[in-house]
Amino acid sequence: MADARHYLKIEGQFEMVRGNITDPSIAYETWGTLSEVADNAVLIFTGLSPSAHAASSTTDPSTGWWEDMVGPSKPIDTNRYFVICINSLGSCFGSTGPASINSETGDKYRLDFPVLCLEDIARTGQRVIEKLGIDVLHSVVGSSMGGMTALAFTLLFPGKARRLLSASSAARSEPFSIALRSLQRELIRKDAGWKDGLYEDGAPPATGMLMARKLGMITYRSAKEWEQRFGRERATDDISSGKSGPFGIDFEIESYLEAHGKSFINAFDANCYLYLSRAMDLFDASDHGGSIATALSRTGLESALVIGVKTDFLFPPHQQEELAAGLKAGNVDVEFQLLDSLQGHDSFLIDMDRFRPVISAYF
Amino acid sequence: MADARHYLKIEGQFEMVRGNITDPSIAYETWGTLSEVADNAVLIFTGLSPSAHAASSTTDPSTGWWEDMVGPSKPIDTNRYFVICINSLGSCFGSTGPASINSETGDKYRLDFPVLCLEDIARTGQRVIEKLGIDVLHSVVGSSMGGMTALAFTLLFPGKARRLLSASSAARSEPFSIALRSLQRELIRKDAGWKDGLYEDGAPPATGMLMARKLGMITYRSAKEWEQRFGRERATDDISSGKSGPFGIDFEIESYLEAHGKSFINAFDANCYLYLSRAMDLFDASDHGGSIATALSRTGLESALVIGVKTDFLFPPHQQEELAAGLKAGNVDVEFQLLDSLQGHDSFLIDMDRFRPVISAYF
Repeated sequence: MADARHYLKIEGQFEMVRGNITDPSIAYETWGTLSEVADNAVLIFTGLSPSAHAASSTTDPSTGWWEDMVGPSKPIDTNRYFVICINSLGSCFGSTGPASINSETGDKYRLDFPVLCLEDIARTGQRVIEKLGIDVLHSVVGSSMGGMTALAFTLLFPGKARRLLSASSAARSEPFSIALRSLQRELIRKDAGWKDGLYEDGAPPATGMLMARKLGMITYRSAKEWEQRFGRERATDDISSGKSGPFGIDFEIESYLEAHGKSFINAFDANCYLYLSRAMDLFDASDHGGSIATALSRTGLESALVIGVKTDFLFPPHQQEELAAGLKAGNVDVEFQLLDSLQGHDSFLIDMDRFRPVISAYF
Repeated sequence: MADARHYLKIEGQFEMVRGNITDPSIAYETWGTLSEVADNAVLIFTGLSPSAHAASSTTDPSTGWWEDMVGPSKPIDTNRYFVICINSLGSCFGSTGPASINSETGDKYRLDFPVLCLEDIARTGQRVIEKLGIDVLHSVVGSSMGGMTALAFTLLFPGKARRLLSASSAARSEPFSIALRSLQRELIRKDAGWKDGLYEDGAPPATGMLMARKLGMITYRSAKEWEQRFGRERATDDISSGKSGPFGIDFEIESYLEAHGKSFINAFDANCYLYLSRAMDLFDASDHGGSIATALSRTGLESALVIGVKTDFLFPPHQQEELAAGLKAGNVDVEFQLLDSLQGHDSFLIDMDRFRPVISAYF
């Protein structure tokens, strides 16, 4: 399968909030055509784990992570908009991160990578659009961590985006979600296979990654969805064969988490996961103005669509309301939608019946 | 400090739901005096981790785990009631469990202990009251796992309790809480120090216990409480000294979990924890009647007080409602209280201002 990624090569030092790196690359994909006056560009920042491949294209026809949302005649319509999605700095799908080679040492960065902040990722977005000849974005878009990054973009570059779509995101993390992510990181770090970040290719801290992903999955969905999907259904016999002793897999929910966890172990670099997860904890819009309210009054946005989900306990409804109210107080024309989706935090990836019309109407 | 525990020695085979053990002991404490007609006995089953020491006494003046609720002139008034609290079968505070010596082999049971069910614990409660000369209990009481055990008692021995107090419990576990407990167990089992249950005294699977307890703590409290208590407060410098590298303790919430987790490692036996945790997943009131509704119509209770907490996401409000409605449909005189406590599932141990008057009024 062909690769649709483009790369921005930043030459020399790239200044991050908490350090510097040399000659980083940023991978991105684009869909649609930039208008002559360059006023139809939509920049998408991703959640923690996706690549820049938000949607299929003729170059790379594989299904993207937001396939139902981005494309010709889709809610973010690539017949009308020039859509850019970037792989986050610190990730492992083409952009420079802890798993990349440090050109100054010839070795992987690993833990020598500077502490990552979402502001760093937002700045790479600005570099990408500069290169593409875009002065002002039609919209900046993000869900979950990507929504925080999109918000960071508006705070660092007020007026550079006319519109914001924030889905299941927040102005900062509260201690409950910090605790959950902190524990996920610790599960990886406490795996002897992590080796203080020095694990080799093909020998990741598999147990830690499995445990962390299971905990992640628990926080990404909702109790209500699982009660409806699984109830107290028992796992099929071939899985609960008793091989794992008296505490093995018994319920269907346990076998579901095992399957999802295992598929993640080799799909994401452990150190990259640690850096990106930490960046979500560290982000705080109030760093850009002394308070969330002051910060949110300085985005220069014309309008915003803030979408939250009632069953999302990682970025709960009151944080969506805080974000919407803060932007509104800053004279942004805000549309706030609190959806009834069952799938918790991950609803924006799944519940297209509820997300599609809302996003379609905004675009 | 003197020991206030009594022991019921069950001679010969004790039949459990999924196996048998020989000559088990059950530790219990009592407060107050049994009336001549033996009609004032209150039996308390505990949550997963407490001992039988619910309250101080002249024999053992140390603070009990429900000190504010049990005692002279307290809501469960030991001037009026003869109160019994038993340490659960499978636990490690005097009752026989996986950490006890199997008299048939001379070695610890460890994983040879039969799979534990809450019905087994309920049956030991019945044996204890028989020994004490009690035919019918004034009340059976339990919170969290203890509430499930108390319910199991009424289903196994209909009419043997006139009243039930169930706090923050449920008729069965839903997949969300099963997932959380299953992952806690896996965190212990995946610790190399667990050694398939064969760890030695003084060398517990400390990392697994620490990780499991942190996850437990996250589920026992509420996001709202933590936002109010911790917000984004940073940990004090001596803790976040950077010794643990770029992913160490940064926020106060992380240091809080670390402290609580560490204190648990040597306070509870890992195998006992696994057995009791699993027993909570396995309990299902519908096993006693084909459906929850049918089961709850067969308790023989005269009345019940069902207390839930709005911020409890482990045993959420709808499960409290299900329990209360089911008992009511079975002609039990039910009082249902859904409290506004902030402390989530653990509120019954902390928010005495809200729990005290409700329980006091019922007794």
